[in-house]
Amino acid sequence: MAPTDVGQHFVIATTLQALGDDSEMRALLVGQPEQIQPHLAAVNGLAAASIRQRIEIVPAASVVAMGDTPREAIRRKKDSSMRIAIDLVKAGRADACVSSGNTGALTAMAHFVLKTIDGVERAAIISAIPSAHGHTQMLDLGANTKATPEQLRQFAAMGTIIARDIHGLENPRIGLLNIGEEDIKGHEGVQAAHALLQSTRLNYVGFVEGDDIFSGEVDVVVTDGFTGNVALKTMEGAARLIGNRMREEFKASLPATLAGLIARPVLRRVAAGLDPNRYNGACMVGLAGIVVKSHGRADSAAFARAISTAAVAARRSLTAHIAQALADGGLSTHD
Amino acid sequence: MAPTDVGQHFVIATTLQALGDDSEMRALLVGQPEQIQPHLAAVNGLAAASIRQRIEIVPAASVVAMGDTPREAIRRKKDSSMRIAIDLVKAGRADACVSSGNTGALTAMAHFVLKTIDGVERAAIISAIPSAHGHTQMLDLGANTKATPEQLRQFAAMGTIIARDIHGLENPRIGLLNIGEEDIKGHEGVQAAHALLQSTRLNYVGFVEGDDIFSGEVDVVVTDGFTGNVALKTMEGAARLIGNRMREEFKASLPATLAGLIARPVLRRVAAGLDPNRYNGACMVGLAGIVVKSHGRADSAAFARAISTAAVAARRSLTAHIAQALADGGLSTHD
Repeated sequence: MAPTDVGQHFVIATTLQALGDDSEMRALLVGQPEQIQPHLAAVNGLAAASIRQRIEIVPAASVVAMGDTPREAIRRKKDSSMRIAIDLVKAGRADACVSSGNTGALTAMAHFVLKTIDGVERAAIISAIPSAHGHTQMLDLGANTKATPEQLRQFAAMGTIIARDIHGLENPRIGLLNIGEEDIKGHEGVQAAHALLQSTRLNYVGFVEGDDIFSGEVDVVVTDGFTGNVALKTMEGAARLIGNRMREEFKASLPATLAGLIARPVLRRVAAGLDPNRYNGACMVGLAGIVVKSHGRADSAAFARAISTAAVAARRSLTAHIAQALADGGLSTHD
Repeated sequence: MAPTDVGQHFVIATTLQALGDDSEMRALLVGQPEQIQPHLAAVNGLAAASIRQRIEIVPAASVVAMGDTPREAIRRKKDSSMRIAIDLVKAGRADACVSSGNTGALTAMAHFVLKTIDGVERAAIISAIPSAHGHTQMLDLGANTKATPEQLRQFAAMGTIIARDIHGLENPRIGLLNIGEEDIKGHEGVQAAHALLQSTRLNYVGFVEGDDIFSGEVDVVVTDGFTGNVALKTMEGAARLIGNRMREEFKASLPATLAGLIARPVLRRVAAGLDPNRYNGACMVGLAGIVVKSHGRADSAAFARAISTAAVAARRSLTAHIAQALADGGLSTHD
């Protein structure tokens, strides 16, 4: 089902595990066969035969490097694992592509090969962020470096569709990220987007600030990919700093160490509920095909999550669904 | 010493406390005398006479509201507490102004009345953010909604001066906030700023991402006021979410409650080390006068911090110091 752009060492093992857990899933592993083959030979256990049957290796001669520009990637990396994985989606041989590679190149290639659906100028990366009462859907997390007001409106419409139809919220509340909640705040870009969003039938509640990503007062936070990516990395960094400080303080003395042992089960529950790896697998929405971006820092558990995000999106026909919902227009057309 | 733009209920009490703690400090309380007077009458204790002697009430007929545009504030609120407090700095009657009011109006009024120093087009809000090995100085946290490459270079120079001369770092490392660390990432604005910063004698290490605010790998993070403010509010929101989740989990059962009681002293130390209120009092740098912006959500302890930030800036002659360091040019001129 999901072709995997094979990069990090745990990618193949994690994909094999996912195939073991989901007997309806198939995987096209895109990369250098001589690197992939030994992993497959090592598969054992009861399901080994079934897993091997559901795997196909698709050879790729090159890889897109983190330093490749989007333009270079499109022009010169036609034989790369990333490009071939996207081509497989385009050809209908795969239902979704999962990659943890260079975001800029992945976005550019995905736009170039798959194209966006009608009514969408640019795809956006969306992910669920933990919040006070559940999750907030946030987009764009970095597919683009900027966004026009019209593109922000399109992101708001897609965020609404996903919050409603994938996450079951009846009438998702949309907020536009800004540096103040009053109507007069922000630069002309967010001001124009604010006016545009007010003219739609979306459940647009107005400007929100960075802390509202977590407050639970909106269900979808819309922003450009630059701001969204900075906010995403900032929240991850803040959470990591807090975790590290706690580890240090719980090691600072014997009583602290004992207190840490006693508190550990509770702290683990807190960490598990907020772990960004549990929310890995940001979906690129608005393309005529499913592309899931796994975080560059993902571990095996996080990569498994990205595969499962791709599987859910494919099984729910996310692409066709968004295209249909946008075409129906009830959501996003102007009054 | 510091005129206080009197708004929230704790502002006067906190200012009186600061005067009690610092016998060299004087305060000009700007606001409605009939609101301020009762607080002063209530001062008692040994230092009461000394504190009262160091206070002057400066009447103001209006206040700048959170919804006032910067333009309205400048045109129509000449008799506001905010404007009068800034005028007192301009007139040399006060060494610094502390306000927790509307950031946009404060920035606009401060630019209008005080003007920027030579070599600075726009002032920026700077604050210390807790990081892995101490603190990161970050600017602009929201004085402006955008920044040109040249303005980002000026922010980098001012951040360097503050990290070096106020915080004692020998050769502060500067990072430019972006959505990837590779040279090719980001929109044309950060690309142009990157090239400009590379041409200076600043210790510019290149692009950093949101999580590097906390990693300790740079000493100064430079960004435009929109991105900086979103990042600041996002980190505050993430920290609050984590704190709330911990409180919930430690209440979830009797064993969890007991574990929480045992772990509490350690968790309090962690929280104290990261509390944004301890770092309240973001300084607006680049103006020909000292203006400190206290966080809108500040409590009494945080407001005390803002007063002390103003006092430190005034005693170190921050304005003259930055002007001199920029004029010397060793830091910021091109090769």
